[in-house]
Amino acid sequence: MANREIQPGSKFPANATVKEDNPEQTFHITKLTGRNVFVGVPGAFTGACSAQIPGYISTYEQFKEKGINNVYVVAVNDVFVLKAWKTQMAPDGTKVRFIADDKAELTLALGMLFDATPLLGGPRSKRYVVVTDGDKIISVAVEPVPGEVTVTAADKVLPLL
Amino acid sequence: MANREIQPGSKFPANATVKEDNPEQTFHITKLTGRNVFVGVPGAFTGACSAQIPGYISTYEQFKEKGINNVYVVAVNDVFVLKAWKTQMAPDGTKVRFIADDKAELTLALGMLFDATPLLGGPRSKRYVVVTDGDKIISVAVEPVPGEVTVTAADKVLPLL
Repeated sequence: MANREIQPGSKFPANATVKEDNPEQTFHITKLTGRNVFVGVPGAFTGACSAQIPGYISTYEQFKEKGINNVYVVAVNDVFVLKAWKTQMAPDGTKVRFIADDKAELTLALGMLFDATPLLGGPRSKRYVVVTDGDKIISVAVEPVPGEVTVTAADKVLPLL
Repeated sequence: MANREIQPGSKFPANATVKEDNPEQTFHITKLTGRNVFVGVPGAFTGACSAQIPGYISTYEQFKEKGINNVYVVAVNDVFVLKAWKTQMAPDGTKVRFIADDKAELTLALGMLFDATPLLGGPRSKRYVVVTDGDKIISVAVEPVPGEVTVTAADKVLPLL
């Protein structure tokens, strides 16, 4: 399962199917334009992720001011869980998009899958931030310890954009 | 992954490790005494499961009056998700126990694992009710369609106890 983390200069994986909101509908994240931010997290409702994501929700407009088109939170969770978590994170709604990578295709293609069996029962996403420009990856930050939030905190990422 | 559903007369699988509340702590459901009810569900936060489980929470005392020691809800979800779902299902708490079968060991041993990839991304639990007496299984009900709640509804199970 261990795979090489994607590197700047690579193309964003266009073959992976994911879901958002609708459990019946899968789609590919393609036609990326401008710059976009992808925030990978190990697990909805875990302590670290639930501490990290409010930072992206509250600073969403600052990401927009930096010229970022979309902020995507990506987790290897099913869409029902991700929707419930989004509602808990943003009861009043948010434009941050919550992507359910329920088959781990995108996470695997990004080289971000790791064995989270001891805590979460199976493979999950490393905690990472990937920034794209068009369909190209321009920066990658990965937490050395997935349970910690350092380089992937919103206030650490914003100044670099 | 398809496996044979466990039958009445079989022993409850004692080797499977599960979690409850604490992500760091796995345990075996052993030393079952008297009669216990296990309710398997495909997914926390899905519509059908979230409609089914309140029935067990609201009739918990009726299960006790029938001599049932514990009512266990078992899902192939991680413990963080299951805790969040329990809180949503029972904001004021409940004695119904929510068991995270995060590695699907118990569900597999019960023969209840099915491929839920289209909707949920991977293998999950069929919707079932298993009643035990001591360490022996005395009745098994499985929904023909996991997304529906008929024979596994609390008000259908109670009269049979």
